[in-house]
Amino acid sequence: MGESVLRKENISDAVIRRLPRYYRQLSELRARGITRVSSLSLGREMGITASQIRQDFSCFGEFGQQGYGYHVRELCEEIGRILGVDRNHHLILVGVGHLGHALLQNFPFGKCGFTVDAAFDVAPGVIGATVNGVTVRGMGDMEAWLGKNPVDVVVLTIPREVAQSVADRLVSLGVRGFWNFTNVELSSANPEVKFENIHFADSLLTLSYRIAND
Amino acid sequence: MGESVLRKENISDAVIRRLPRYYRQLSELRARGITRVSSLSLGREMGITASQIRQDFSCFGEFGQQGYGYHVRELCEEIGRILGVDRNHHLILVGVGHLGHALLQNFPFGKCGFTVDAAFDVAPGVIGATVNGVTVRGMGDMEAWLGKNPVDVVVLTIPREVAQSVADRLVSLGVRGFWNFTNVELSSANPEVKFENIHFADSLLTLSYRIAND
Repeated sequence: MGESVLRKENISDAVIRRLPRYYRQLSELRARGITRVSSLSLGREMGITASQIRQDFSCFGEFGQQGYGYHVRELCEEIGRILGVDRNHHLILVGVGHLGHALLQNFPFGKCGFTVDAAFDVAPGVIGATVNGVTVRGMGDMEAWLGKNPVDVVVLTIPREVAQSVADRLVSLGVRGFWNFTNVELSSANPEVKFENIHFADSLLTLSYRIAND
Repeated sequence: MGESVLRKENISDAVIRRLPRYYRQLSELRARGITRVSSLSLGREMGITASQIRQDFSCFGEFGQQGYGYHVRELCEEIGRILGVDRNHHLILVGVGHLGHALLQNFPFGKCGFTVDAAFDVAPGVIGATVNGVTVRGMGDMEAWLGKNPVDVVVLTIPREVAQSVADRLVSLGVRGFWNFTNVELSSANPEVKFENIHFADSLLTLSYRIAND
């Protein structure tokens, strides 16, 4: 801790996906006033073995101290930095239907390190409105607006039929990160473009399995 | 295939969470008209090694044939059965705000094997309405309604402040499965009760990491 963070190449997808879970768990421990935690008890709360935790953290440097465990606040902040919550990423939301509204009104973008700069939609009834401080603009203004206000991420909450064509249009405008709620597997010929998909069905099917088998 | 499915005890959480992804991928292959797939090419599309796939499937019996690969339709149907999509589970949604509306209108509950029997809310403006064929009832009617119409799962799309108290009330009414969108870690003293949490933030933070590090 406090030392420069070593980033190994080729960190596996599974490790990267556990980082936000560690961050969430450590944030909760912090909120509960807990200052130190062992890999054993952190793992127990998360259903992960202690050795898995030590192995995961070893991808990013040395976080713990033998016999002492982890310093909760420092580890939480360090993982936050690795995840980029201190980078102030900029974001727009495209598609202000029910789901788009719900995210604008309730999702803590700021806590995740994102500023919502604007929202876009095609419906005249919603264009010009302000949702939780965010102005909704017409899709026709997207080119001009993004030309002046580059963003890191676009939240896609549009109908699946138009998902790929809108994504293509945004990629051509320089967008490289998509938080994709359309339930369509999007793709881009540009390997720099990252798609992060929310698959609600995967979660419900996991629950379906559990209520039938556990 | 065609033989009875052997279910091993203590299948790990990681394996269970991969099942819906296999199901989704195989459903897509089916839709593309592909009839056979090797563990190698299935893995390549999913970012999973072939040996991991064989190991995962071995938890549930023998699905493939040496040198032939997997029969896409049969494997898809078998995993669907393991996940319970053929069980016709019953479900209600509690909290018809923007997110609840979005799920009722757009989420394919039927494809996941769930029938939405009713929705509940406290707001007089929405009680009595019908959203995509589902009647919205008052929360005060929940006891009487669930007494006559037991359900397997409740979708919780209510404010976080009331999440645990509403969950407790539903557990006391016999509910054992919760699809939890409240971003609160819910708990129950009853070990039979399963909570499946959707953590939007974990997904956005994974994207945040990727756009900064890949």
